[in-house]
Amino acid sequence: MKKKPLRVLLVGFGNVARKMAAMLTEEREKYPGLADLQLEAVALFTGQHGGRIDPAGLDLERALRQFRDSGKFPAVPLTVMQALQTLDYDVLVELSTLRIAEKGEPAVSHVRAALERGKHAVTANKGPAAFAFRELDRLARRSGVRFLFESAVMDGAPVFSLQRHALNGCRITGFSGILNTTTNFVISRLEMGETMASAVKIAQELGFAEADPFLDLEGWDAAAKTAILANVFLGAGITPLQVERQGINGLTAEITAGTMAADRCWKLICRAELADGKVLARVAPEEIARGHFFAAVNGKSAALRLETDMMGPLWIAQENPGLVDTAAGVLQDLITIATRW
Amino acid sequence: MKKKPLRVLLVGFGNVARKMAAMLTEEREKYPGLADLQLEAVALFTGQHGGRIDPAGLDLERALRQFRDSGKFPAVPLTVMQALQTLDYDVLVELSTLRIAEKGEPAVSHVRAALERGKHAVTANKGPAAFAFRELDRLARRSGVRFLFESAVMDGAPVFSLQRHALNGCRITGFSGILNTTTNFVISRLEMGETMASAVKIAQELGFAEADPFLDLEGWDAAAKTAILANVFLGAGITPLQVERQGINGLTAEITAGTMAADRCWKLICRAELADGKVLARVAPEEIARGHFFAAVNGKSAALRLETDMMGPLWIAQENPGLVDTAAGVLQDLITIATRW
Repeated sequence: MKKKPLRVLLVGFGNVARKMAAMLTEEREKYPGLADLQLEAVALFTGQHGGRIDPAGLDLERALRQFRDSGKFPAVPLTVMQALQTLDYDVLVELSTLRIAEKGEPAVSHVRAALERGKHAVTANKGPAAFAFRELDRLARRSGVRFLFESAVMDGAPVFSLQRHALNGCRITGFSGILNTTTNFVISRLEMGETMASAVKIAQELGFAEADPFLDLEGWDAAAKTAILANVFLGAGITPLQVERQGINGLTAEITAGTMAADRCWKLICRAELADGKVLARVAPEEIARGHFFAAVNGKSAALRLETDMMGPLWIAQENPGLVDTAAGVLQDLITIATRW
Repeated sequence: MKKKPLRVLLVGFGNVARKMAAMLTEEREKYPGLADLQLEAVALFTGQHGGRIDPAGLDLERALRQFRDSGKFPAVPLTVMQALQTLDYDVLVELSTLRIAEKGEPAVSHVRAALERGKHAVTANKGPAAFAFRELDRLARRSGVRFLFESAVMDGAPVFSLQRHALNGCRITGFSGILNTTTNFVISRLEMGETMASAVKIAQELGFAEADPFLDLEGWDAAAKTAILANVFLGAGITPLQVERQGINGLTAEITAGTMAADRCWKLICRAELADGKVLARVAPEEIARGHFFAAVNGKSAALRLETDMMGPLWIAQENPGLVDTAAGVLQDLITIATRW
């Protein structure tokens, strides 16, 4: 790795960003694999609560404590866009959350602004790769920099690195997966006889579901992930709006009981395939036979099945990931940049 | 990739080698991902049926046809060791089969001879990495060449590339897996009420098991794979002889019936973990609950669960691989060498 630290401009300081900051500072000795990663944050923006800018490098541990204590930073004299366009940095780390209604904005514009200046961009936000992959990927290649988003699908499970670095010679021809935790959890509660309303409430109480569970239940989160995978693996050039989408709202305790009696279970399945040069992408509840891999994906776990032109289907799955997994995905991308710069 | 072809010395011309030769010649247009891989075989050795040597590069397609027609090649004037020590080549491709009683020989010596001369070594034989990983890995590093064996565990599923290229910053702390097909199949037949003898016979008829199924049933194949994974992932420096090993010979139709009645099933599980700086490695039948990922691993499928210091357990699994998967693993290693040479 380069000795010179990677200068980071951090947008978003929610749970994932704070976990990452903690892993890089106060928790650092727990992770010997991070020993060689030298980062220097030159700016840090929260969504609504100010930020910090220091061209000489922020004290990330102190900033983390400050934010924990007061819940905010001072107001900063630059907007995020101004910072992206004028500050001296090597990598944008975009950790704001997906806004489907805004078609991934403002994260898409943030990433574009960084790439246009020849800066790398790493994001856990699904927006940029779901709504503008083709444009941003081209821009990154033209600028000779990286546009990476390992955490956007299955947290830190190395879905995109696997394809980029470990499937030499193989072409992916299609995929299917269980990629949304909330719906998977809600279905498991329906199977226990609960109503949809009560299942969603429990998911919220346990921190699975957002305050507004609409994005999950209607299949939008799954559709965003499907679009990303279809864009990266199959060259689809689609957005979540072009993914045929059916949520789990139609499911009830009665329906799931009947399915279970037939030794099957419901899962919200994301899938896409290349057919006659066109990519068909779809999110919908499907009945899965007990004994199938998908039937074993429970709790917060996720699984992805890749079809290739050379090998029998390949699975990658993760077991009950947490915040640390998402933060780890961002750190993996930063290490990819630091080591292959 | 380099324009200059990679000059290959091929040892072993069994099913995997012939499938690879076919993929590189008569089947090549089926695999666009292989388009950039330029190989030139300068020598080819069968186990007992002669070989071919041509410093100017063999016609692999013609050699394949010749072997199919006559089942043999002419005798060659060099032994494999003499060829390894005197011919001009870039990569040894070692595709002979594992001999446990000979502690992986002669494949270990073949790989050593190549690495000592500063030639890369790729092998699908479990022997070298199971019996001599530490020595051969050191030798490869010292010589600035690669010692790769993706197909030795889970065929072409990119187990080792995943760790090498896609788990940035993570350390693997332990693993468990179902890695032997024959035992998995035999157990499934015991569950159908068959005797061990009849289950093994069917496995042989279907091409799952070797003529001598001893290596599989006694857990030796699984122990070799466990030793390799423990050596590569956990730095164990062990051989299959140091893996605590229990085969499936003790299982019967009665035992499996009782287990199934309790909604569980038997699987031969490979596992290893780091405990107090020591690696404990073990192969033994374990009772797995229905609904667990492992319970869904049937047919020729295999699965590996990796524990890391950073992320929740990560799974990689493959569904019913065939010869092409094993050959694909060898080709992946060759592409790794060609692209990162």
